Amino acid sequence: MRARPPPSGWTPPWVKTYRAVDFKFDLVAGLVAVMLLLPQSLAYALLAGLPPHCGLYASVLPLVAYAFFGTSRSLSVGPMAVTSLMTASAIAPLVAAGTGDAVTIALQLALLSGFMLMLCGVLRLGVIANLLSSPVNQGFMVGSAILIILGQVLPLLGLRGQGHTGWALLRSLSTSLSGINPVTALTGVTALALLLLSQHFLGALLCRLGMKPATAGMGVKLVPMLIVVAGIGVTIALSLDLNHGVRVVGPLPQALPALVLPTLSLTSLEQLALPAGALALIGFISSVSVAQTLAQREQEQINPNREMLGLGASNVVAALAGGLPVTGGLSRSVVNYTAGARSPLSGVVSASLLVLILIQFSMGPYFARLPVCVLAASIIAPMLNVLEPRSFLRIWRYAQADGLSFLATALGVLIFGVEIGIALGIGLSLLTIIWQASHPHIALLGRVAGSEQFRNVERAAVELNPRILALRIDENLFFGNIGVVEAALATALEDQPDAQHVLLVLSSVNHIDATALERLLALNESLMTRHKLLHLAEVKGPVLDQLQRSRLPQILSGQVFRFTHEAFAALDAH
Amino acid sequence: MRARPPPSGWTPPWVKTYRAVDFKFDLVAGLVAVMLLLPQSLAYALLAGLPPHCGLYASVLPLVAYAFFGTSRSLSVGPMAVTSLMTASAIAPLVAAGTGDAVTIALQLALLSGFMLMLCGVLRLGVIANLLSSPVNQGFMVGSAILIILGQVLPLLGLRGQGHTGWALLRSLSTSLSGINPVTALTGVTALALLLLSQHFLGALLCRLGMKPATAGMGVKLVPMLIVVAGIGVTIALSLDLNHGVRVVGPLPQALPALVLPTLSLTSLEQLALPAGALALIGFISSVSVAQTLAQREQEQINPNREMLGLGASNVVAALAGGLPVTGGLSRSVVNYTAGARSPLSGVVSASLLVLILIQFSMGPYFARLPVCVLAASIIAPMLNVLEPRSFLRIWRYAQADGLSFLATALGVLIFGVEIGIALGIGLSLLTIIWQASHPHIALLGRVAGSEQFRNVERAAVELNPRILALRIDENLFFGNIGVVEAALATALEDQPDAQHVLLVLSSVNHIDATALERLLALNESLMTRHKLLHLAEVKGPVLDQLQRSRLPQILSGQVFRFTHEAFAALDAH
Repeated sequence: MRARPPPSGWTPPWVKTYRAVDFKFDLVAGLVAVMLLLPQSLAYALLAGLPPHCGLYASVLPLVAYAFFGTSRSLSVGPMAVTSLMTASAIAPLVAAGTGDAVTIALQLALLSGFMLMLCGVLRLGVIANLLSSPVNQGFMVGSAILIILGQVLPLLGLRGQGHTGWALLRSLSTSLSGINPVTALTGVTALALLLLSQHFLGALLCRLGMKPATAGMGVKLVPMLIVVAGIGVTIALSLDLNHGVRVVGPLPQALPALVLPTLSLTSLEQLALPAGALALIGFISSVSVAQTLAQREQEQINPNREMLGLGASNVVAALAGGLPVTGGLSRSVVNYTAGARSPLSGVVSASLLVLILIQFSMGPYFARLPVCVLAASIIAPMLNVLEPRSFLRIWRYAQADGLSFLATALGVLIFGVEIGIALGIGLSLLTIIWQASHPHIALLGRVAGSEQFRNVERAAVELNPRILALRIDENLFFGNIGVVEAALATALEDQPDAQHVLLVLSSVNHIDATALERLLALNESLMTRHKLLHLAEVKGPVLDQLQRSRLPQILSGQVFRFTHEAFAALDAH
Repeated sequence: MRARPPPSGWTPPWVKTYRAVDFKFDLVAGLVAVMLLLPQSLAYALLAGLPPHCGLYASVLPLVAYAFFGTSRSLSVGPMAVTSLMTASAIAPLVAAGTGDAVTIALQLALLSGFMLMLCGVLRLGVIANLLSSPVNQGFMVGSAILIILGQVLPLLGLRGQGHTGWALLRSLSTSLSGINPVTALTGVTALALLLLSQHFLGALLCRLGMKPATAGMGVKLVPMLIVVAGIGVTIALSLDLNHGVRVVGPLPQALPALVLPTLSLTSLEQLALPAGALALIGFISSVSVAQTLAQREQEQINPNREMLGLGASNVVAALAGGLPVTGGLSRSVVNYTAGARSPLSGVVSASLLVLILIQFSMGPYFARLPVCVLAASIIAPMLNVLEPRSFLRIWRYAQADGLSFLATALGVLIFGVEIGIALGIGLSLLTIIWQASHPHIALLGRVAGSEQFRNVERAAVELNPRILALRIDENLFFGNIGVVEAALATALEDQPDAQHVLLVLSSVNHIDATALERLLALNESLMTRHKLLHLAEVKGPVLDQLQRSRLPQILSGQVFRFTHEAFAALDAH
């Protein structure tokens, strides 16, 4: 059976069931979410190596675009940690090579990856998400988190320096450590300590004070905003920026951006295609997995192709509005969901509020005096949560091959950077599948005494028939493993030289490729010269259909049996 | 069960059973084989773009080296068509770039690919042969044959020009066609016509005259030598080379080569690593498949690791003796086998004879006047046999994905050259395996009325139980297909909303990777929130062992049943 294709049509799914009363909920959720959105958008712009206003610009229109195209009710789209890291690592070499300024390249990246996603969405390539295995994804997140933490320790301590591999960052840290700014470091480390303490203890405390767990969790998520406000307050009160050299965010624009699409020359296309592709892939996979997690809780379904389109459109408008690449983020989406969002309209509310706060209410000059080290702390704190060894150990214990993919991806990201790391991980996880299929489990079958059951001689007490050699191959037959099957059969024939019938039990074989077929035909022939017959049993319907289109039915020396016990009954009689 | 590892130890396997009387047979076979070896070694050197004596040098010591290391009794190692084509294509850009002369580069290639093979042999990497599927191998052969034919039409007609892609060769042909040498063209086309006629009709004729089919087949194989002798005779008689501008082979060396290993600088290592790797891979796969074919006829086994070592050593000594890369060739090996060779000593006989003929008996000056167009004809004739569309159609009819791999490899070789073509084919055939595994066959199971059998509702008349939804997944569960399984289950649940039990029948599942496990756990949880239980049935031993190492046994809402009918009996009672 097949999955039913998701409903099509262009009306956003939430529109159909939206009622006027829902807007009250969206209004509250949007109000809550903007408290998280504001500090995050400033911080992630910083992480991407861009002026903070890019982050704000990237947080307005994308939310509106997603409302039109997306299918999740509570996904919050905007600048996120990993995409910002990838943006930074794509920008750096080009800026160094003098190809353009950072802001322009970021816009081109957002535009290109947005177009790629929209195209893939229209072509219904949402299945691309299946390319990334969970261990590779987790390894990528761990490697990225370490890169992000290493990179943000510099501004946290008031140092300058950069790098896009673990080694470069460590070197940058060690060479600049003497230039530490004590006031900045104190502010930053205090902010970080408060964030970590609130993450670990505030939730339990609020619960004990009688709050519901969900509300308490949301409260914890709002701590970064409180710390940002406190940071601004302390800076202004003590003139940390003016008298103590604490670096601050600096002036924010007092107007909405002009909407201009960046131009893409052929050269920039060529240089940005790979990083934009990686951004599109990672952005989409993060976004769709968040959307899926939230949809499952409500027993709703999301449509990956529509999500692709929605995220693509969000990136295109991010480029249009002077932002940076965006994706759906887990923490903001969860806050949005917990605060009761009924539709993407809550995002539109957040976007409108952001504009109001900064421009209409002229809060910009206050945010201009927000210390950068506080933003760095707010980036580092959630990243430390990613670094928990338990999920790695769980994977390693279950399947070492998957554990290796995890490790290789994490190390690849750290040593070679995000793009090569992810490519390494995907390649390795694909090779693992091929490798496993190339080492099939092969069972010599015997009869469970007095029954019609045939089982592996190594796992059950069974009777062998010296005239019939029955092997069950527990894998699809293809070019990579047919040689292993041949060798196992040769060994079995040496051990059982009187066997006149070779029976291959194909109950686990779902495909036989052309190479395996050809070699089976050759095996049939070589067995015939030794006066042995080749039989098949328990061939699945689709495999049998396909074999009918080959020469096998004409030249097979033996027969095709439906069941193993039928084969033994018929062959033993001869 | 596993295959028994092949016997180890360093004595060549044929030595142990060799009797003095066997040598008579090897002597005769060696005598016959040299008749084929002589024209082929000259022709394939030409094809590689090297002076003809390189081909002779490459035909002596490698045969001796193979006798020591190889495991096949009748494999004949020497310059072959495809490896010569690959040598030519690797040499051309380097000579054009002024990196060195063609002969030196050919020797470096042989040395490097020989070392690679010996290293892989010692590391027991003989399984590398499994990388190449039969359709990719056949597509490669077809593409290469077309390239070889296009390339040899030029010398056949007395034209000069070269190219390493189909397009370049066609252009070369069309621009130089006006410079055709009529006498050369007449000689070449006559030789080709005689070869083709003998290939198609001589065997049947000889059989009708009372020869045994095997002997007749061998007779046909010796026609190229007769035509070479005839070509030399006509050239000398009519002074075709002196008076009519027919290009001839030219002076051959009157002494054995000095044994000097070529030096490998780091730069040449870097430039040659890729082509040498491709040569090693293709050479090994051709060689081992010929050895396997011949061994099967005698019910002997060859050891792929020892074959790798043998071919590697042959290439190293080919480099030592001033030759070019070598491999085991089908046509010469079959002649050797049919002529009764009992051991690789027949090759040593051939090698000694070759030295005697050219140096001791001073036949060199005669061979110097052999027209190049006759050699070209002897290269083209067997290549035309490769171009038979039947094998492609057979593959296409059986499995379109395999047909596409065949086509892509052939076109890749023609358009981009041999190395990119083979890489394309291997990549595509690996992706095909992943693609198929990503589109699993999923069956909704129902009970065959009154029995304990459960079958696909789409293939059999079965009864469904509205409270139990049973899906059989006919593929290993991994990151690439778990999403498809989830979607199919969601659809099935929509169709059967009263189902309280979801039963996954894993009789065809041999692996469950970490991603699939994680998603199964999430599925278990999301079904629980909907008051549905998740059960498993027919889980294989190794899969069950692995699942025991995960959290699944603790948190699975339902049970693990041994058989589907047991599951239905137990669940229906609730």
